Amino acid sequence: MPRGKRTVSPKNDSIAIVGCGLIGESWAALFLAHGYNVRAFDPNQETAEGFGARVNRPLAQLRELGATGAGCLTVTETLAEAVAGVVLIQENAPENIPLKRAVLREIEENAPQSAIIASSTSALTWSDISPDLQWPHRLVTAHPFNPPHLVPLVELYGIDNAIVVQAEAIYRNLGRHPVRLKKDAVGHIANRLASALWREAVHIVAEGIADVEAVDAALVHGPGLRWSVVGAHMVYHLGGGTGGISHYLQHLGPSQVRRWQSLGSPDLTPEVCAALIDGIAQEAAGRSIEELEADRDFKLINALKAREIARG
Amino acid sequence: MPRGKRTVSPKNDSIAIVGCGLIGESWAALFLAHGYNVRAFDPNQETAEGFGARVNRPLAQLRELGATGAGCLTVTETLAEAVAGVVLIQENAPENIPLKRAVLREIEENAPQSAIIASSTSALTWSDISPDLQWPHRLVTAHPFNPPHLVPLVELYGIDNAIVVQAEAIYRNLGRHPVRLKKDAVGHIANRLASALWREAVHIVAEGIADVEAVDAALVHGPGLRWSVVGAHMVYHLGGGTGGISHYLQHLGPSQVRRWQSLGSPDLTPEVCAALIDGIAQEAAGRSIEELEADRDFKLINALKAREIARG
Repeated sequence: MPRGKRTVSPKNDSIAIVGCGLIGESWAALFLAHGYNVRAFDPNQETAEGFGARVNRPLAQLRELGATGAGCLTVTETLAEAVAGVVLIQENAPENIPLKRAVLREIEENAPQSAIIASSTSALTWSDISPDLQWPHRLVTAHPFNPPHLVPLVELYGIDNAIVVQAEAIYRNLGRHPVRLKKDAVGHIANRLASALWREAVHIVAEGIADVEAVDAALVHGPGLRWSVVGAHMVYHLGGGTGGISHYLQHLGPSQVRRWQSLGSPDLTPEVCAALIDGIAQEAAGRSIEELEADRDFKLINALKAREIARG
Repeated sequence: MPRGKRTVSPKNDSIAIVGCGLIGESWAALFLAHGYNVRAFDPNQETAEGFGARVNRPLAQLRELGATGAGCLTVTETLAEAVAGVVLIQENAPENIPLKRAVLREIEENAPQSAIIASSTSALTWSDISPDLQWPHRLVTAHPFNPPHLVPLVELYGIDNAIVVQAEAIYRNLGRHPVRLKKDAVGHIANRLASALWREAVHIVAEGIADVEAVDAALVHGPGLRWSVVGAHMVYHLGGGTGGISHYLQHLGPSQVRRWQSLGSPDLTPEVCAALIDGIAQEAAGRSIEELEADRDFKLINALKAREIARG
């Protein structure tokens, strides 16, 4: 960790990371690279011990993207030590309701009353994890998108507007793009969209319309590329000619509804799973998961640099 | 058109563009910028007359991306003149089955026997448009993704492997990324995926989970960005840890199937349409469709430049 070139964090703010797995690593790197001091805790001693070294990889990628902050990382022996005096706790415990509730309760008991408690939960909702809290208004779900230190999205939901506004400001400080939900929902926004798309991607393979590799290539070189610059709703506004979305809905809405009816509802049968596994083997072409991840990160970093250039 | 700096096209090949609307413009610019001579025809005289001027906009964008070819554009008065002596006809007629069939029949009667007949059809399938042809093996559907001169995807389907291979080579010459379907399908691959995603995007707005603008922002800064570098299937391979897709399907497959069951089937009721139209107005924030398109193109060009850099 860059302790040598230690500079002060924004207002010397400290952040707690509770749960030091892959998501915790990314969050820690983001906060450190933007000048926050980070206090990290994981009940698994082995996970906690290797944390400093593991944070270096995402941190180096953030340095490549121009982040110059140099917060200080401290791995603590107890949760209470981690959350003492922090402005925000980012909780990344396993996706298990009783466990999350217990961890959040312990955080609440030990953190400053003013601290925001943010859960990275992907599979659970605010309502699932908040019932045991004494002050649930302090809790927000703040769901990052993997890999969190590179993909800017953070999906936010909470019941106290002032707290959500504060959380938004902190995530913006990290170069994140927070997006607010108006209502608690399973899968937030992004995983609902991803799940809907993947269902059809599985259907296309199951029906023998195209191979796994062809589906992935079509997405990456077609709608994926376009959705990296224009949202799905806006696409139909631009697809409506000079009449925009109103014209589109009036003239092509009914044909979209018919298209929706023709989409698939595949089952993950052993045959379908085998086709997916074979297809991935073909697409991976011998590359290990580590190599594929490095390729993804390299391309994401390039795409992010291009966005910076586009912003001017 | 760049007639001054006229250079020879690859083997002096000529291409016919039949249908000079927006899609025809993009195709013409692509072929010209890669050194092909283009012969264009549209039955609407007004559309035909302005074509040369309209092709300049996509052509300038391709120049910015480094394309240096300088084919020659000729707008012809008859379809027969356009298709005489060409190696490929790119048909972009309106999406109307009887009309498409008649146009393709006329193309077939007048084009060289060796020419590939490629239809840009988005809404129709190969089976819809081929029945009246004498030699249907010459026909391929070659569906580009809007805006076609910037988005590299071309979805190909045909019944003669040798013809599909030839078409693939031509599209690769244009810097396109052709993807093959094994089976004729409505919506090919990309529009099926886009339709599946939009259905859920509409559901999220209809259910009041998030606003149009929030959904679009979540996509652009989350899954859209990631899908511009990793396909939907590969994402789950990387999401499965060291066990990859097999591990994912075994451990999280059932939870995905449950998630699929919780996805929405919205109706485009007047209320939902009003919410979409209002949401787009908010997202557009006073920008005209022209301005929004220019913004999209600017960002796409930057993303494409980043891909070039990533390729080294």
